[in-house]
Amino acid sequence: MSFEIELKDRISRTEEIISSYLPEPEDFGSKVMEAMDYSFLAGGKRIRPMLMMETHILCGGDGRLIAPFMAALEMIHTYSLVHDDLPAMDGDELRRGKPTTWMQFDEAVAILAGDGLLNYSCEVACLAFNLAESPDDFAAIASALKILYHHSGIYGMIGGQCADIEAENAQNVTEEMITYIHAHKTAALVRAAMCIGAVLAGADEDTVMKLDHAAECIGLAFQIQDDLLDITSDEATLGKPVGSDARNNKTTYVTLHGIMGSRMKVEELSNEAIDIIRNINHRNVFLEELVEWMINRDK
Amino acid sequence: MSFEIELKDRISRTEEIISSYLPEPEDFGSKVMEAMDYSFLAGGKRIRPMLMMETHILCGGDGRLIAPFMAALEMIHTYSLVHDDLPAMDGDELRRGKPTTWMQFDEAVAILAGDGLLNYSCEVACLAFNLAESPDDFAAIASALKILYHHSGIYGMIGGQCADIEAENAQNVTEEMITYIHAHKTAALVRAAMCIGAVLAGADEDTVMKLDHAAECIGLAFQIQDDLLDITSDEATLGKPVGSDARNNKTTYVTLHGIMGSRMKVEELSNEAIDIIRNINHRNVFLEELVEWMINRDK
Repeated sequence: MSFEIELKDRISRTEEIISSYLPEPEDFGSKVMEAMDYSFLAGGKRIRPMLMMETHILCGGDGRLIAPFMAALEMIHTYSLVHDDLPAMDGDELRRGKPTTWMQFDEAVAILAGDGLLNYSCEVACLAFNLAESPDDFAAIASALKILYHHSGIYGMIGGQCADIEAENAQNVTEEMITYIHAHKTAALVRAAMCIGAVLAGADEDTVMKLDHAAECIGLAFQIQDDLLDITSDEATLGKPVGSDARNNKTTYVTLHGIMGSRMKVEELSNEAIDIIRNINHRNVFLEELVEWMINRDK
Repeated sequence: MSFEIELKDRISRTEEIISSYLPEPEDFGSKVMEAMDYSFLAGGKRIRPMLMMETHILCGGDGRLIAPFMAALEMIHTYSLVHDDLPAMDGDELRRGKPTTWMQFDEAVAILAGDGLLNYSCEVACLAFNLAESPDDFAAIASALKILYHHSGIYGMIGGQCADIEAENAQNVTEEMITYIHAHKTAALVRAAMCIGAVLAGADEDTVMKLDHAAECIGLAFQIQDDLLDITSDEATLGKPVGSDARNNKTTYVTLHGIMGSRMKVEELSNEAIDIIRNINHRNVFLEELVEWMINRDK
């Protein structure tokens, strides 16, 4: 099977798993549930839950406890987009060609839908306890919960978003600050995905630490590639306007290191990540291809 | 010791426990942490964590696992106020005489601070796993997590808030809808408080169910009393403007049943709750007084 066909197949399997955890709209509060489902089902490549599952397979996991965490992670990613799009944040009206949640409903419902998704992610992740068969399972789920909310919170994604807002208003954005933003805003959920996949497979601490470092490299490379495409691609290929960073006077890794320097950095990070993944006991060739595709995409 | 002195003492002990879980502002994302601390420390009677602790004592708990859950519940209550005050929601500029979070910082930071508090509540609650000494402890913490995020989410507080927004725009608000809003928006976190207090004390299912019903009565009575005070009190006593429900054309239990009917309902619910609390194996006189004070307050 070619990688593209396999990817399409895995995306639809991931979609099936995570969608099964959505709430059924009911009662008087149903509008917020509709808005949650609308945001969650608006598309996307489901990269985070897919990375979680593939890392789990890489570490020899049996998949028994992982489904609720795949759904929870995608809910967290989705809520962050819903709140990011709000007028007080980025004010985006379209996402993947569809009206953003606040445009489709209204601001109040979008705020509540974001809150609802974050809160529901925790309810869904806790469903894993119902699947636990041993004290080891309980301990693994507790670790997975800690990892998930550490990386999605103020020391992870939310911290990165706040730094991003601060950087937009700052006179002088340093490389340290850019690295902080990338490492937190973008790489944090990739780290959560891969570490949870490993922990729920019972991987030892050393393996989890190695995969955590691989995830950091992947997240960083993914973001630099995003900034590169904003300069080197065109709207027809990318499916969204290019050059927005330059228009917004945004300092990125590319403005600091140039196109060649950035391409070299992406290459270096990509090799480092693949090298780690290739040297775990088991092998998962699809995961290696997935990481290469994520990092070297042209859109 | 008189009830008032004891109450003051318990509030400051609760304050001490929950404040110890606040994050230290650090790194580039520190502004969102400052905003979280600002909102959390803006005051309040800390009724929810206090109810949790007192129910725990009532059920013979040793207090070993409860502190992180007290802090987590208050963080959830705080984030809901931060998001409720936003211009797209109630647009309030002052709370307890101080600028609301979005007024003190800005809207973007207030949205992120709310998200940060909800997310951090989960990180903090998971700290209880570090205190677990047995599989029973693990199971009790897992139950407490499920209860917390069930009652704070779309089937609890968030669902109630959404219904509240829908009711503001509705032509015909039924008693069923009013009861739904009160039971979800107000009573849900009271139920979380008391049930978690009981579960972490190892209370049996029957006791937890009884206390859950008591909590529902308390939450409902508390809200009806709030609506009564909006009509019968004056601004000097209440410390906030009165008559806002009438001005906003808001249908409440009082508009449906009148002042006398509402007072009778508060009395009835209060007796039902106290009766349950008094008939649990242990006794906690302070909890009985606390509930009476909460329900029969004049401000």
